[in-house]
Amino acid sequence: MDTRTFLGVQQSHNPFRWSMEVTPGISTTGGFLFGGSGLGAAITALEGTSGRQTIWATAQYLSYAKPGEILDIDVTLAVEGHQMTQARAVCHVGNREILTVNAALGHRPFEVTGQFEQMPDVPPPSECTARAFRGPVDGTINDRLEQRLAKGRDFDHLDGTPGDGQTLMWARIPDVIEGVDAAALAVLGDFVPMGVGQALGVRGGGNSLDNTLRLVHLVPTEWVLLDIRVHAVERGFGHGLVHMFAEDGTLLATASQSCIVRFWKG
Amino acid sequence: MDTRTFLGVQQSHNPFRWSMEVTPGISTTGGFLFGGSGLGAAITALEGTSGRQTIWATAQYLSYAKPGEILDIDVTLAVEGHQMTQARAVCHVGNREILTVNAALGHRPFEVTGQFEQMPDVPPPSECTARAFRGPVDGTINDRLEQRLAKGRDFDHLDGTPGDGQTLMWARIPDVIEGVDAAALAVLGDFVPMGVGQALGVRGGGNSLDNTLRLVHLVPTEWVLLDIRVHAVERGFGHGLVHMFAEDGTLLATASQSCIVRFWKG
Repeated sequence: MDTRTFLGVQQSHNPFRWSMEVTPGISTTGGFLFGGSGLGAAITALEGTSGRQTIWATAQYLSYAKPGEILDIDVTLAVEGHQMTQARAVCHVGNREILTVNAALGHRPFEVTGQFEQMPDVPPPSECTARAFRGPVDGTINDRLEQRLAKGRDFDHLDGTPGDGQTLMWARIPDVIEGVDAAALAVLGDFVPMGVGQALGVRGGGNSLDNTLRLVHLVPTEWVLLDIRVHAVERGFGHGLVHMFAEDGTLLATASQSCIVRFWKG
Repeated sequence: MDTRTFLGVQQSHNPFRWSMEVTPGISTTGGFLFGGSGLGAAITALEGTSGRQTIWATAQYLSYAKPGEILDIDVTLAVEGHQMTQARAVCHVGNREILTVNAALGHRPFEVTGQFEQMPDVPPPSECTARAFRGPVDGTINDRLEQRLAKGRDFDHLDGTPGDGQTLMWARIPDVIEGVDAAALAVLGDFVPMGVGQALGVRGGGNSLDNTLRLVHLVPTEWVLLDIRVHAVERGFGHGLVHMFAEDGTLLATASQSCIVRFWKG
């Protein structure tokens, strides 16, 4: 299936209005819509309405949506040019705003290219161990993403000793076999909170305040290497980025986030 | 003076409405409002209305404003909690929207902190040479920012040979002696386009599509080290970040941007 089907995004009679049922499969173990699923759904709608590919998109998270609720995604094309569209998607349940996404989409014929961030040298997914979770993840988003740690600590080693801020993890969405697109990378990019726990060396994570995706170059790949870099934690907030590499080393996209840091209970 | 005075941001009788005259001193040599000045003005208004400090703010640039025009900055506080405010600032000239800023502001008492990005080892500003410009910058924003290159190429060495993506530059705003705040860092963070020319090794730069600021920890400093990292240039767009360090090595903030890549004429 494609990412639109994976997320369950539906078109309506109005090309500017889309919707998505919040199901457990796109939600966290905490029982609310996974931030990356929200940004991914908005990107699917923005690309569908504009007919253009994402360059950059930022989600501001305002409220939680829960399984059983229907998310309306209303697209506005603010500026439409020859090569680019500047757009917004306001995502709400009833009149409660859940997230707002601002984005630029488009393509320019331009001969000069360059990739300056290089993929770290890591073992292939087949030689990495599956990420362990602190409880059952059955039926949640974590059950639908395969995750294998290339650099990171298990629970027993999260003893309060800080790390160097970098976590490396292979990830893939087994249901999405038709190619990794911007919406899929939005789902895979929402891992700064996980990296914050690893960086601080604590059993914790965070809740996203935003999720920003900068799309570079899509190439076919099954697994995506998440190079998670936490910049700092201060005033109760964590900040960082996720470089996302294809198996061949191509930088697909870079995500970045700020989050509210939380310790896990128990 | 403080950053509010530097930019010329004015309060009105309505605490949710601010304005700023677009002057040459906050504009580019191209004759339009510098993106960092726009984000800085919105941050000043958002912090003034909410009474809280920026955690994260993103500007989407939709249109250009020119010297002589008056920018209205309308603030909406979407969600106000005990520790945080989620807010927006819509900045327009007449009914033409120039930029929209989404932001989270606040503070949480939280004992665990960490800085994982470290300041590169560079000579002090006194031992670095002033950045050369391709034409007169008198009276523009570049005339009001002091810039000294610690790692970067002058025009003669921009011969099409790609670099490693990193540019290091000391910057300060001599007029702002009362301390670097979030608005000042918004101005200083708008340097990914400059880094794109350096990374590609071409006489060029870009126009910002967005400007995202993640505020970490404010400490007194005169100079700020801009550690500009261009991730990639593809499809005519450049993507990268700027880690901003105080002279004592503290990570003040991280900015990131996507931009439309342009070659300079002549």
